[in-house]
Amino acid sequence: MSFSVTILGSSSAKPTIDRHPSAQVVNIHEQHYLVDAGEGTQQQLIRYGINPLKIREVFISHLHGDHCFGLFPLLSTLGLYGRRTPLRIHAPAPFGEILAAHLRYFDTALPYEVEWVETDTTKHRLLFENRTIEVWSIPLRHRVPCAGFLFREKEPPLNVDKFAIARHALSIAQITAAKRGEDVWLESGERLSNDRLTYRPYAPRAYAYLSDTNFSAKATNLCRGVDLLYHEATYAAAEQRTARDRGHSTTLDAAKAALKAEAGRLVIGHYSSRYKELAPLVEEARSLFPESYPAVEGRTFTIEKSGPQRRTAPASEHP
Amino acid sequence: MSFSVTILGSSSAKPTIDRHPSAQVVNIHEQHYLVDAGEGTQQQLIRYGINPLKIREVFISHLHGDHCFGLFPLLSTLGLYGRRTPLRIHAPAPFGEILAAHLRYFDTALPYEVEWVETDTTKHRLLFENRTIEVWSIPLRHRVPCAGFLFREKEPPLNVDKFAIARHALSIAQITAAKRGEDVWLESGERLSNDRLTYRPYAPRAYAYLSDTNFSAKATNLCRGVDLLYHEATYAAAEQRTARDRGHSTTLDAAKAALKAEAGRLVIGHYSSRYKELAPLVEEARSLFPESYPAVEGRTFTIEKSGPQRRTAPASEHP
Repeated sequence: MSFSVTILGSSSAKPTIDRHPSAQVVNIHEQHYLVDAGEGTQQQLIRYGINPLKIREVFISHLHGDHCFGLFPLLSTLGLYGRRTPLRIHAPAPFGEILAAHLRYFDTALPYEVEWVETDTTKHRLLFENRTIEVWSIPLRHRVPCAGFLFREKEPPLNVDKFAIARHALSIAQITAAKRGEDVWLESGERLSNDRLTYRPYAPRAYAYLSDTNFSAKATNLCRGVDLLYHEATYAAAEQRTARDRGHSTTLDAAKAALKAEAGRLVIGHYSSRYKELAPLVEEARSLFPESYPAVEGRTFTIEKSGPQRRTAPASEHP
Repeated sequence: MSFSVTILGSSSAKPTIDRHPSAQVVNIHEQHYLVDAGEGTQQQLIRYGINPLKIREVFISHLHGDHCFGLFPLLSTLGLYGRRTPLRIHAPAPFGEILAAHLRYFDTALPYEVEWVETDTTKHRLLFENRTIEVWSIPLRHRVPCAGFLFREKEPPLNVDKFAIARHALSIAQITAAKRGEDVWLESGERLSNDRLTYRPYAPRAYAYLSDTNFSAKATNLCRGVDLLYHEATYAAAEQRTARDRGHSTTLDAAKAALKAEAGRLVIGHYSSRYKELAPLVEEARSLFPESYPAVEGRTFTIEKSGPQRRTAPASEHP
């Protein structure tokens, strides 16, 4: 039941020798979601051992080239790899036109379908869900329409305590009812409340991606309690004015967001090419939010499960 | 008076960890010409110490993504770098439409002009010239309209032999006339034929880029005598049929072209991702054309000047 984020790109618009423009892969339960796709994404996927064919869904925050120029070559190469599974791309308008032009000029015979779903960057909306996760848009404050993304695990199915099963000699039907969250009646007429029988195997985990943006209290609120927060930090704290004027954030903006959101950990990235060393940027963020880490390409941030979380009374109840 | 080719990309359509799609920089007399621009070109330029702002002219062989997807991010970044000099791009139709779409969606405020010049891929035409070089198109045989490029130095201005100047006490006017290739009349009435006074400082050098293509006798003829020939070799010799069917060449096709063109050296590249090692490919080419070398990213092939080449009689004539 993996939940991790692998950094593929960490630079802002001008790449450097070592830093590619924005791209990440979020891996939740071995389903891979591509978040932004700057130039070089397909090669970065291969470099870090992620099979490009495994990409299940794509989320593009906004239509600046450093967040999407790597998507088009990837679409072409997926065709050469023989992908058959349709690929859905969430992106703001007018991505549909851009995609249509790409397909017309470069990929008229793609062996799989590409579907565009428009993101309304002004709304906090559910973009995608399956049995185990939800992905929500988070409106951001950039120079062009831009949305971040919140990846959130759904509540996992309850586990039934094996000692409770033994002690009360529960039938299959009773166990199934308990798993559904129901109370159970014993033959004796006793009613066992569900919270004495079951526990949550782990707390649902959450990751939020906020790039590109000025500090936004609203966006921060929508990320409350995430285990991991990626927040762009294009500039050092000294460049506060530049950051604000260009719709970007500083290290301290990012740290403030993590603090206010009560995030578990913060990852900063989208560094301006002017910064050769990342350590001073990380230090700035840590001065406000100690659990700050740099986005480094190839690095995977794993969110471990915390749990199992007993909902029943203390251990003394068990034999 | 440099004349060199730096390999930025060496892979065919599917890049690998170590190999980017096609791109090269031809440096002639410190003027830089970009030939094809696969994904990652801007980062490869930086990686190998070539200032992207120095690109003078761009030549795109054909409109497959692995030969041009890196151009659009480069155009954007040149804008961020503050380029003011117009940039001319030679490419087949409908590149103009693709460029217009790119500019409309991503670069409405580029601080320099981008001009598209259509290449007629069916003709051997002069595409570009300045005081020192000419660039010609070379029709190729690929699945889509495709042209290679021939970079050829013009005849350099003649040098006047300093011994001849001294012996005949030539005036400035006489020296200037000799430089222009004219004969010189001495006061004695003697006429000195130009070839006794001048010599060619070096033989004009030439480089040809042939990618993507099946072997083409016609293209080969147009490259006769080049010092350096780049010829794609997507496949090993054993894959002759695959190569032919897909509009590509094998190592032996490339070697045959170099042999027939009487090229000085051959560089092969555009390798299929199936080949992990290049040595066996180079060996195949060398079995037919010993001066074969692999395109390796970051490697620069320099064409040295051969000369000075005396057009006058032997040394005994001099004191």
